[in-house]
Amino acid sequence: MNISGQIYYDGAWRAGEGATYQASNPANGADLAPVMSTASKAQVDAAVAAAHRAFLSYKNTSPHVRATFLRNCADEIMALGDELLDRVSAETAYPRGRAEGERARTCGQLRMFADYVEHGEHFDARIDTAQPERQPLPRADIRFLNHALGPVVVFGASNFPLAFSVAGGDTASALAAGCPVLVKGHSSHPGTCELVARAMAKAAENCGMPPGVFSLLMGEGSIVGSALVSAPQVKAVGFTGSTSGGMALYKLANERPEPIPVFAEMGSVNPVILLPQALRKSAPTIAKDFVASLTLGVGQFCVNPGLVLAVEDEGLDDFVKATSVALAESPAGTLLNKRICSAYGEGLERYSQLDGVEVVGRGRAVELTEGHHAQACLLRTTAEFFLANSAIHEEIFGPVSLLVVCKNKNELLEIVTHLAGQLTGTIHASENELENSPELVELLTLKVGRLVINSFPTGVEVCPSMVHGGPFPASTDARFSSVGTAAIKRFLRPVCYQNYPQSVLPDALKNNNPLGLLRTVNGEVTTSSIA
Amino acid sequence: MNISGQIYYDGAWRAGEGATYQASNPANGADLAPVMSTASKAQVDAAVAAAHRAFLSYKNTSPHVRATFLRNCADEIMALGDELLDRVSAETAYPRGRAEGERARTCGQLRMFADYVEHGEHFDARIDTAQPERQPLPRADIRFLNHALGPVVVFGASNFPLAFSVAGGDTASALAAGCPVLVKGHSSHPGTCELVARAMAKAAENCGMPPGVFSLLMGEGSIVGSALVSAPQVKAVGFTGSTSGGMALYKLANERPEPIPVFAEMGSVNPVILLPQALRKSAPTIAKDFVASLTLGVGQFCVNPGLVLAVEDEGLDDFVKATSVALAESPAGTLLNKRICSAYGEGLERYSQLDGVEVVGRGRAVELTEGHHAQACLLRTTAEFFLANSAIHEEIFGPVSLLVVCKNKNELLEIVTHLAGQLTGTIHASENELENSPELVELLTLKVGRLVINSFPTGVEVCPSMVHGGPFPASTDARFSSVGTAAIKRFLRPVCYQNYPQSVLPDALKNNNPLGLLRTVNGEVTTSSIA
Repeated sequence: MNISGQIYYDGAWRAGEGATYQASNPANGADLAPVMSTASKAQVDAAVAAAHRAFLSYKNTSPHVRATFLRNCADEIMALGDELLDRVSAETAYPRGRAEGERARTCGQLRMFADYVEHGEHFDARIDTAQPERQPLPRADIRFLNHALGPVVVFGASNFPLAFSVAGGDTASALAAGCPVLVKGHSSHPGTCELVARAMAKAAENCGMPPGVFSLLMGEGSIVGSALVSAPQVKAVGFTGSTSGGMALYKLANERPEPIPVFAEMGSVNPVILLPQALRKSAPTIAKDFVASLTLGVGQFCVNPGLVLAVEDEGLDDFVKATSVALAESPAGTLLNKRICSAYGEGLERYSQLDGVEVVGRGRAVELTEGHHAQACLLRTTAEFFLANSAIHEEIFGPVSLLVVCKNKNELLEIVTHLAGQLTGTIHASENELENSPELVELLTLKVGRLVINSFPTGVEVCPSMVHGGPFPASTDARFSSVGTAAIKRFLRPVCYQNYPQSVLPDALKNNNPLGLLRTVNGEVTTSSIA
Repeated sequence: MNISGQIYYDGAWRAGEGATYQASNPANGADLAPVMSTASKAQVDAAVAAAHRAFLSYKNTSPHVRATFLRNCADEIMALGDELLDRVSAETAYPRGRAEGERARTCGQLRMFADYVEHGEHFDARIDTAQPERQPLPRADIRFLNHALGPVVVFGASNFPLAFSVAGGDTASALAAGCPVLVKGHSSHPGTCELVARAMAKAAENCGMPPGVFSLLMGEGSIVGSALVSAPQVKAVGFTGSTSGGMALYKLANERPEPIPVFAEMGSVNPVILLPQALRKSAPTIAKDFVASLTLGVGQFCVNPGLVLAVEDEGLDDFVKATSVALAESPAGTLLNKRICSAYGEGLERYSQLDGVEVVGRGRAVELTEGHHAQACLLRTTAEFFLANSAIHEEIFGPVSLLVVCKNKNELLEIVTHLAGQLTGTIHASENELENSPELVELLTLKVGRLVINSFPTGVEVCPSMVHGGPFPASTDARFSSVGTAAIKRFLRPVCYQNYPQSVLPDALKNNNPLGLLRTVNGEVTTSSIA
């Protein structure tokens, strides 16, 4: 399959009428063919109109039809074979193993949501039957069912060219919910976007989905994104990326005549708290695992451990030494693009120039002149300095972490109290230490979407129990997750049916339960029919 | 119990340091003793700080403790006896039966949420057990649990002095979720607010709840409300009232450094569609029930049927005649306050002065000179005129409805297509007619939170299947309901536990399932323990 540089909407591939650009290989700076086209405002409008038309039928597809479509998307992505893996590596500098792993996750997500909609939990079907004899007033028959919210705009992330991009978790959960998806692909990996979109388009055609169920619109800058978020027919937005990008969309969505929800996952510093007993027992292992987590994907994860909190102790000294050694053995890696590379360098420079911050560990340099490379780094400061300087509480995207050394546990608690919202919070502790630290555990729980014990936050499992989100500014709405089956809730709204005849009720709510759903009937969870 | 005119926060009754005012009896305009005090900014800050402190312990109370508190709130409200009912009637002009009915609903809601938290569904407990042997990577033990969001601000509505006020559905659902509540009481019924708050305060004390778990802050104008919504410790807002009031709070909440969710239920015109077969068969009954719904509570319901859509037909003529007769027999009622009464009069005047709008029915005048009285009214226009004049699509709060006469079914569909979001949508139709109108049913479903067949939308049942909310501008977030057990979801956020030792896990997630919850374990819904 050749990459054409086209965009896709209303069931057809077309040359974009906006500006053109080329992707480049971050490993060597070389341009990647072909020239890519972007959408014009008129094309965005046409795509949105098609998505709205598609919504009117797609929202009512049966769970089985939707599941078949999602599975076919996964099959068609796999069928892209090496061409996809090669393009991912060329556009991101991610090694083959990473590209394969991310593809597996992406297809796994699509299949998970297929199973999930067939199971029908997302319907949250509820039935309260009539009580005509109730006093003082009779009760009508009332039933409750989740419906698709409407067309959803998904912004692909630079750091997950497959799993948080064209057919990533946002897209999979929105399609599973019954919402057509308009993807604004990330300009760092447009060839990958196009290949995956070709698989999605093919699956939509294979499964007889309405044109407009899926669109890929590329566009540098924010013109296409703003037009998408402003379109009246669009009913929700999923975003993974920077705080500035996420908040700009959030603001735009809230200022529309009809405000719409934006779920923006904007990253965090993901504090890792190392307690003394754990460090005394296992400092070298913790240090090794920490460096592996810090440098995974060249530190380009939302859940990268960017902040380490610990109390002065000999175990901590051992941790710092072991980390420095492990870092020194860790070769520089290639970042995703020039902007990320510059921001990383500037961030490191800004932090390390401060009097209260020192560099205590550095990754190994590599002899490369071209491309966007970065050495990992461990910075150190004191709790006192950290508390006085909120400028160093922010995330530097890339393989850097800031160790904050506390004089005592109270300082540590003080820092946790002052942390902003986070995607994750990690504690390394002996079981005894953990049981004796209820205040710390409690404070950390208030700040995060995911708590991790004696492990590291990288590696987000895709499963029903996952939460990827967290209190602001980690995300715009802590009530939702963008990973796992819970992600579908972002794109559903309940509708109540009062006094509806059986013949007109949706299948999910019919007395004879033709879909075999687990439903809440008069307060009891059951798969039974209603007499 | 005497009404003191005080406010309540941090576990104590105090004189408000803001302005003072008096409530008045809408039936005769007479002032009602005593003089009421309002909160100063400093008092709001102190109340919020106390609510935050209370949150840190209240959020972790067991379901049983929380349920006991909620039930005790209901008991203490009932214990207020006639004093409460008398004050409700004096402040609202609602008859005794309405006051009793609303009290029953309010206490019923508190008890429903008590049962609900004991059942534990709100936890949405999920467990995915470890798979250490999984290839290519092992899976950690991952668990998921909903937590309380934080202190919640509740704005009482004028039209439900009990059920959407101090101890109404917003308060009950937030307290059930584990969130302390700060109520901004409505200045139309401050004595009622104080009495109910005294019951709540007593219940909190009876049950050993932390000071700050519940506060009542009165304040005319928007100063107290703005201070509450702007306070950093506040994490969500529940509001029932006007579009302008709801949107002002929504905007304020979104412009905070940390935006917070606002669930504002802002009412709607609640279209009622009358299809020909139904009218031909039952026009007189439908008309009678329509007038009863329209004039219930003097039309002061969010779900008041303010718009009637029908196609020209002799059955429709019969409906209009019967409605006019029934209206003429319906005496004028007393509205809640002067502002509502003026707005009602101005709205009627504005609509009926238009060339395309005529008055076809009017309630019976009553000979009263004092007080805020209003006659019900049926207006009529054509579909053509309605479509060309969006100014008559808005809600006039009170007992008025606008009948839009369509030439044919296509015009009717055109109007439904152009409707804004609504709390409810109603269809009167024969079963045959309904089955043959899939397009109409589908279009209406897109616009509403609740669909009603062959009945009227007033009378919101409090049960698991209820949805009170709907697409904007009916509410700010169609994904949530403010009535029924689903209302609790507004105030919960999920937290994920990875690799947590049993000894530190919350009870809801422990292997031995000490709370006996229905949990999703490795995808299966079960009450079983984990081996």
